[in-house]
Amino acid sequence: MEFKAGQIAAMIGGTVDGDPEIAVSTFAKIEEAGAGAITFLANPKYTHHIYTTGASIVLVRRDFVAEQPVGATLIRVDDPYETLSRLLEFASRAMTPQPIGIEQPCHIADGVAVGDDCYVGAFAYIGRGAVIGSGVKIYPQAYIGDGVSVGDGSIIYPGAKIYHSCKIGKRCIIHAGAVIGADGFGFAPTADGSYHKIPQIGIVEIADDVEIGANTTVDRATMGATRIERGAKLDNLIQAAHNTEIGHDTVIAAQAGIAGSTKIGSNCMIGGQTGFAGHICIGDRVQIGAQSGIPGNVADDSILMGYPAVPARDFMRQAAYMKRLGELFNRVKELERSINKNK
Amino acid sequence: MEFKAGQIAAMIGGTVDGDPEIAVSTFAKIEEAGAGAITFLANPKYTHHIYTTGASIVLVRRDFVAEQPVGATLIRVDDPYETLSRLLEFASRAMTPQPIGIEQPCHIADGVAVGDDCYVGAFAYIGRGAVIGSGVKIYPQAYIGDGVSVGDGSIIYPGAKIYHSCKIGKRCIIHAGAVIGADGFGFAPTADGSYHKIPQIGIVEIADDVEIGANTTVDRATMGATRIERGAKLDNLIQAAHNTEIGHDTVIAAQAGIAGSTKIGSNCMIGGQTGFAGHICIGDRVQIGAQSGIPGNVADDSILMGYPAVPARDFMRQAAYMKRLGELFNRVKELERSINKNK
Amino acid sequence: MEFKAGQIAAMIGGTVDGDPEIAVSTFAKIEEAGAGAITFLANPKYTHHIYTTGASIVLVRRDFVAEQPVGATLIRVDDPYETLSRLLEFASRAMTPQPIGIEQPCHIADGVAVGDDCYVGAFAYIGRGAVIGSGVKIYPQAYIGDGVSVGDGSIIYPGAKIYHSCKIGKRCIIHAGAVIGADGFGFAPTADGSYHKIPQIGIVEIADDVEIGANTTVDRATMGATRIERGAKLDNLIQAAHNTEIGHDTVIAAQAGIAGSTKIGSNCMIGGQTGFAGHICIGDRVQIGAQSGIPGNVADDSILMGYPAVPARDFMRQAAYMKRLGELFNRVKELERSINKNK
Repeated sequence: MEFKAGQIAAMIGGTVDGDPEIAVSTFAKIEEAGAGAITFLANPKYTHHIYTTGASIVLVRRDFVAEQPVGATLIRVDDPYETLSRLLEFASRAMTPQPIGIEQPCHIADGVAVGDDCYVGAFAYIGRGAVIGSGVKIYPQAYIGDGVSVGDGSIIYPGAKIYHSCKIGKRCIIHAGAVIGADGFGFAPTADGSYHKIPQIGIVEIADDVEIGANTTVDRATMGATRIERGAKLDNLIQAAHNTEIGHDTVIAAQAGIAGSTKIGSNCMIGGQTGFAGHICIGDRVQIGAQSGIPGNVADDSILMGYPAVPARDFMRQAAYMKRLGELFNRVKELERSINKNK
Repeated sequence: MEFKAGQIAAMIGGTVDGDPEIAVSTFAKIEEAGAGAITFLANPKYTHHIYTTGASIVLVRRDFVAEQPVGATLIRVDDPYETLSRLLEFASRAMTPQPIGIEQPCHIADGVAVGDDCYVGAFAYIGRGAVIGSGVKIYPQAYIGDGVSVGDGSIIYPGAKIYHSCKIGKRCIIHAGAVIGADGFGFAPTADGSYHKIPQIGIVEIADDVEIGANTTVDRATMGATRIERGAKLDNLIQAAHNTEIGHDTVIAAQAGIAGSTKIGSNCMIGGQTGFAGHICIGDRVQIGAQSGIPGNVADDSILMGYPAVPARDFMRQAAYMKRLGELFNRVKELERSINKNK
Repeated sequence: MEFKAGQIAAMIGGTVDGDPEIAVSTFAKIEEAGAGAITFLANPKYTHHIYTTGASIVLVRRDFVAEQPVGATLIRVDDPYETLSRLLEFASRAMTPQPIGIEQPCHIADGVAVGDDCYVGAFAYIGRGAVIGSGVKIYPQAYIGDGVSVGDGSIIYPGAKIYHSCKIGKRCIIHAGAVIGADGFGFAPTADGSYHKIPQIGIVEIADDVEIGANTTVDRATMGATRIERGAKLDNLIQAAHNTEIGHDTVIAAQAGIAGSTKIGSNCMIGGQTGFAGHICIGDRVQIGAQSGIPGNVADDSILMGYPAVPARDFMRQAAYMKRLGELFNRVKELERSINKNK
């Protein structure tokens, strides 16, 4: 499929700056694009590539001002990244396999109804009493335990595992290898130093439009529910312990870990490999830098970084001071010498 | 099922402080509980909730003294958390699916005997020469390699993978997605800068009563065995490299990583996201705070934190000093000015 | 199988220092080895064990000089670890199951050709248009999506998942639970604070001789490809985000995380739990200590450590200064007292 710059601009509400007849048939990153490719410029770090890119078309902000000649045709839009996203979606529907129907052998327990537009891949397992909405895709080797519900339009990728009784909302995406509802890590010490397992009889409740990354684990609650609210996005290899709660539209990058009973507010942005202590509350709209350690409660709108975390500006200053510690020790030594001489 | 406060107190050896006739049918967390629920108070951080909880019954320590009126009926016990655990266990047996029998299709290699009380789920794989004890539950899509042994009463959750020749003790729990016995990460550099794989011909030996969390990986030894001793509990997404040893009754929180050949003693408590260098020895009863980095040997009974780790008290002091570094630089500058003026 | 010291020395080009007739039938670590075992000494930390080991044969460097009597027969070689590796390989071929053929039930889509020397385990899934080279082993419950190619001699261990259209080179090893090609973590914020998913229409391209550890995740590119070059070795539980590139012969230890679009050069050594910011470039032959945080570009041949990372020597100094911060505060206080007294 080929599209001309003029057609694309009309489709996305942009204005062409160059040749409206130039055509593209693929997407590429600005530094790798060749003739026939459309690309975009959103991150200012990449601006210099626009003067050398081989792309035929580049999506740019409406206010973009070229400081050198640009070979590509530009399409000016309000938000190049969001526009690209819409174009990609269009392409993605054409390029991504859209399986449908029931492949055999799979295991669907007696009495479980699966809608007409669903996909159940080979070797998938759906337990007793499970409720599968319409348009759900359950890929091969996925496990849907007894009593689990999966809302309309959700996708459970290959090998994802959902333990019994957990609830998955509508239009959720659970990536391969994610484990939803394994036992929370709860043990009571006994007199002889060994541990007694605390049964974990709660569940996991995942609201609508949530995405859970590959190999991420969300443990079931001891009692009640571990909750992930509407629109939250979790990257890969994240640990969300028992009875944690993650607010709506919060995004969490890969390998972050949230200890038991901690609540994270809505619209937060959490960097990769960050760790949260247990039993704490994080406010709304909080931003936390990668690899931070969060030992206590955090107020709304905080921007933190470090281990233990401090306001991000202080973290930068601390790191700068750290580099000058040797100098400081020398200066103090010098002062001591001066003083002793004067005594 | 409903139980009255008097019945429960008799069952668990507690004393009722309130209405012995009040009945409960569910469990809940103290801050979320409503009428008909039993809850508990163990962590002092939650004490204020006891004055407002809607729970019908609260388990408290025998010496609990209310500082305000409490609406709920109290049951006084020695250890509320441990008591709750026993009650949960009772409930858990009723609420958790207890599958039994062999679901088809599954793959059980010729000659492998599986006891009468076992469960083998659909799409589970049991290789040649495997030995499966009695009462073992092997959930769907689990993989038990050739020559693996699984002791009586152990549970292998969906999609857990155990490579050939590894040994799992009795009453172990291996959660979904855990990988036991993948190759250790061993490569010898060659003259041209590429790497030559060192075959990993050892195994993993997991003793009795061990729990391994979801998506945790325990690598097989280069030679000999990677060992996890009796009663150790590993949370989710932990890495235990080749030839590591983890002592009995040691608990390790999520996302910790232990490099090759390191030995951790018994009765240790290791915080989440902690990293251990390779070829080191950690003593018994060691406690390590979350996200610490452990570069060398650690003596028995140490309490460490930080990166690199120091005694936990020193870590707190260091963090406090870090916040005052700017002030210190200013004070030194001021001193220098004073001295120069006096010269 | 038993081998005599003389036979082994001839096989590996070593010289016997002791009894050429002594025989071994197993491998063991130097501190655990008993009679009948061969072991090796490469790491100087373990030298003291050579005087007490029960091993019958020890591989040592040609220039090894014993400082006490040694009971074992020595075989002197250029590189004991590399030599051991070759011996282990020989043993490994005998000890490791080498499955072959097609186990049923498995799912091989119509039209997919699988070579004669391949293994496809039960419950494995191979999608439409996949291309499977000769001698490939696809273990039970592995998932090979539509259009995936797997080069000659590669091994896909149980439960590994490869999403559609990704490319795996020759002689690669993908361990259990690894997920190759899940969606990159890309979302565009919308006006109401929710997020819009950016379709991820790129792929993952893994070159020849790459090893990917258990439960490691390598995300597909937004556009183009996430690339892992020839001979790179990734340990367990690593996150490689969309559009990352990892150079040839680079080794990365467990639980490291690489954010989107970051490029790591060739022949690098990256410590466990290290985190890389997105959109940065790491040079060739870079070495990074465990748990480091890398916020920006790194030049060729750098040796870094810390959070944020600094040259490794500076990190050691900083850690030493950190321990003396309390002392420094006291010294400054003392100076202030002196000055004030003299005023």
